[in-house]
Amino acid sequence: MTERIAVIGGTGDEGFGLALRWASAGRDVIIGSRDAGRAAEAADRLKDQVSSPTVEGLENLEATAAAGIVVVTVPFSGQAAIYKSIAAAVDESKIVIDCTVPVAANVGAKVTHTLGVWEGSAAQQAQAFLPKGTRMYAAFHSLAAVALNDLASEMEGDVLVCGPKADKDVVADLVHAIPALRFVDAGPLENARIIEPITVLLIGINHRYKTDRSGIHITGITER
Amino acid sequence: MTERIAVIGGTGDEGFGLALRWASAGRDVIIGSRDAGRAAEAADRLKDQVSSPTVEGLENLEATAAAGIVVVTVPFSGQAAIYKSIAAAVDESKIVIDCTVPVAANVGAKVTHTLGVWEGSAAQQAQAFLPKGTRMYAAFHSLAAVALNDLASEMEGDVLVCGPKADKDVVADLVHAIPALRFVDAGPLENARIIEPITVLLIGINHRYKTDRSGIHITGITER
Amino acid sequence: MTERIAVIGGTGDEGFGLALRWASAGRDVIIGSRDAGRAAEAADRLKDQVSSPTVEGLENLEATAAAGIVVVTVPFSGQAAIYKSIAAAVDESKIVIDCTVPVAANVGAKVTHTLGVWEGSAAQQAQAFLPKGTRMYAAFHSLAAVALNDLASEMEGDVLVCGPKADKDVVADLVHAIPALRFVDAGPLENARIIEPITVLLIGINHRYKTDRSGIHITGITER
Amino acid sequence: MTERIAVIGGTGDEGFGLALRWASAGRDVIIGSRDAGRAAEAADRLKDQVSSPTVEGLENLEATAAAGIVVVTVPFSGQAAIYKSIAAAVDESKIVIDCTVPVAANVGAKVTHTLGVWEGSAAQQAQAFLPKGTRMYAAFHSLAAVALNDLASEMEGDVLVCGPKADKDVVADLVHAIPALRFVDAGPLENARIIEPITVLLIGINHRYKTDRSGIHITGITER
Repeated sequence: MTERIAVIGGTGDEGFGLALRWASAGRDVIIGSRDAGRAAEAADRLKDQVSSPTVEGLENLEATAAAGIVVVTVPFSGQAAIYKSIAAAVDESKIVIDCTVPVAANVGAKVTHTLGVWEGSAAQQAQAFLPKGTRMYAAFHSLAAVALNDLASEMEGDVLVCGPKADKDVVADLVHAIPALRFVDAGPLENARIIEPITVLLIGINHRYKTDRSGIHITGITER
Repeated sequence: MTERIAVIGGTGDEGFGLALRWASAGRDVIIGSRDAGRAAEAADRLKDQVSSPTVEGLENLEATAAAGIVVVTVPFSGQAAIYKSIAAAVDESKIVIDCTVPVAANVGAKVTHTLGVWEGSAAQQAQAFLPKGTRMYAAFHSLAAVALNDLASEMEGDVLVCGPKADKDVVADLVHAIPALRFVDAGPLENARIIEPITVLLIGINHRYKTDRSGIHITGITER
Repeated sequence: MTERIAVIGGTGDEGFGLALRWASAGRDVIIGSRDAGRAAEAADRLKDQVSSPTVEGLENLEATAAAGIVVVTVPFSGQAAIYKSIAAAVDESKIVIDCTVPVAANVGAKVTHTLGVWEGSAAQQAQAFLPKGTRMYAAFHSLAAVALNDLASEMEGDVLVCGPKADKDVVADLVHAIPALRFVDAGPLENARIIEPITVLLIGINHRYKTDRSGIHITGITER
Repeated sequence: MTERIAVIGGTGDEGFGLALRWASAGRDVIIGSRDAGRAAEAADRLKDQVSSPTVEGLENLEATAAAGIVVVTVPFSGQAAIYKSIAAAVDESKIVIDCTVPVAANVGAKVTHTLGVWEGSAAQQAQAFLPKGTRMYAAFHSLAAVALNDLASEMEGDVLVCGPKADKDVVADLVHAIPALRFVDAGPLENARIIEPITVLLIGINHRYKTDRSGIHITGITER
């Protein structure tokens, strides 16, 4: 696997944490941001933690154009605008992975509530902005940002991945690049409507159990 | 009926149009805005069109405090923040009427799509921010702003009103203060989830039928 | 227009009423039922009211096969089974019109509540059971069955039609075959999620206004 | 804990499995069914496996009246009718635990899809049929029926419980009566809308991973 990974929204906590983990695993990572300067600054911050000569920061559209795998980690309120801004650089050669959770806090309401999305899920709304035939996945919703950014601690739990069967091994490979995480095939993209809200459930569980890193694990299955 | 009417979001097209119509009918109207100066400016604009000595512009919380009927006409993306900002001035003595439509354009997606709201409807989400016992209604969603602001033209169609039976006559009175509009009792507040999306349907119909003022009318019923 | 019309579920009140109106307009109608005998009996009942030599009753699959236009008027709880049973006779040569409303009463809950449908609407759920490329429409949801069956009374209001532009004129022709009804182009099939719930709103309005035939009309538009 | 447990729908696989596990743990169990004879027959089957002098089978309303904890394990299509039938025996002295999943298969559609419920979740729809003040919980949705009925095998995973804080320890006690299961506080009843669909996700995972007993586990939390 030598595909470059662009993390759109890579200056945010979730995106930066994923970029950090992948760079740490020797993957070739681009941090994307609406602002090229902030992207470069985040890339520098990353290189302070991980010695990775290939990490760079680019404006989102350029980051998308330069990568084979595009991971989008942005708030739901900005998701549509971001996808519109990168759509021109997306084609069937790329894999796009959406991590968006339609938290109601995006419109000022509760962080433990979700919004319903017309297309069924945030991932399907995203897909509607991209060219037909885009290889679209939903994953990495419920990994705690705090844990991702704490390289000294091992991650825990599963990454439930929705999308077409064809390239799920590529996404599985991204999951398994982060030590201790396990890929779980969660079915077609439409299942993202079940996966996305689990994150707000975990936000509530974090609060009740006084932690910042609860996660999800599927019991009773073994690697296929 | 001598209750003062505060139109929160009254500097926007929909709110200003409603304020204009009610002032024109001799009602005592307050234009509310987050900014007192913009509220006053809008009140002046209104008085340029309608000779109404009682019209004034106030910051939203003050407008709410000064009124007996509070009509909230704000975009869904700002709705939660606005309700939080006026909640302290709401009690059981007031009637609150929500006009919000959860258009997906609020998160950058389509103006002909809606978002699903956790509580069932935008009106019920609003209610959750107000004290228990607030007399809450949903109404005036689908009146074309262009038509409301065109005092020379008569309005057309029905206003479907959801909320408790007790004070529906007060809302009906507001509807009938605008010539040619008819009040229709659309049942309890939870029915707002059916009414609110009709507005995005009308946006599409406006586009297809090349108009700016399609509306809705219920056939087969006579005044009770 | 000489396409035969199959009314699947034509022994029910809504379906029989539509069949009656179309036969009365000189259209060639087939009443479909799961049971061929009951279909034939309903066809006889229809011919008692309208002299129409071409009306016949057939089992649903046969009715579908024999028609160019297939109108499905069945309860939501039976919708999936019915579509599976007729799918083999549907191809791109036919137009299918779904009239289903996902009333919560289908699972024993309230007749004024709806169920949310995974695909977005009952019409889109139906489409998922038919071959790709089926020309699918949603329409005729909110016409009062009592009024349809009362040939002496004129219908009132609009029929909001969702589906692809290409053959909307065929559906408009079916609407206008019933005197006094007006076709309204309500956009793509996905808009059925807004149209379908209007029927349960009207059920509540019927109750509050003591009528059995409230309907919907769009104001402010003129025939294109 | 000496409260009797009525399992409404206890002749079905899920309900029988839960009854079996609780009887096996020495709890006092009543199997409820619409038909008293079938309830008695199921109670006899249970006693063939577990020596439990207190197990009995009763018609649902009688079972509800006789118990302090009422666990309802019925298909969504029958849920409303069942709750209407037991409501007369429910009061504030009882705890009611709903296990319903609104699987779309209840209306003939896919077993991996859900229906949206007007009240937010199946559990909240159930609550609407019971007296105000009923202590209502949602739990036990995703335990594999096959595993529950296989007393020789240990269960695995967590039971996510939604409902009021006050009596969650009673539900936790029911969870921990089944060896190896862990109670997780999943917040208020409204969160059932996130929990219920996880079951259909697991149905798909079972299929893809060729098992009959996948489950869910929350990582990163420790017993409070």
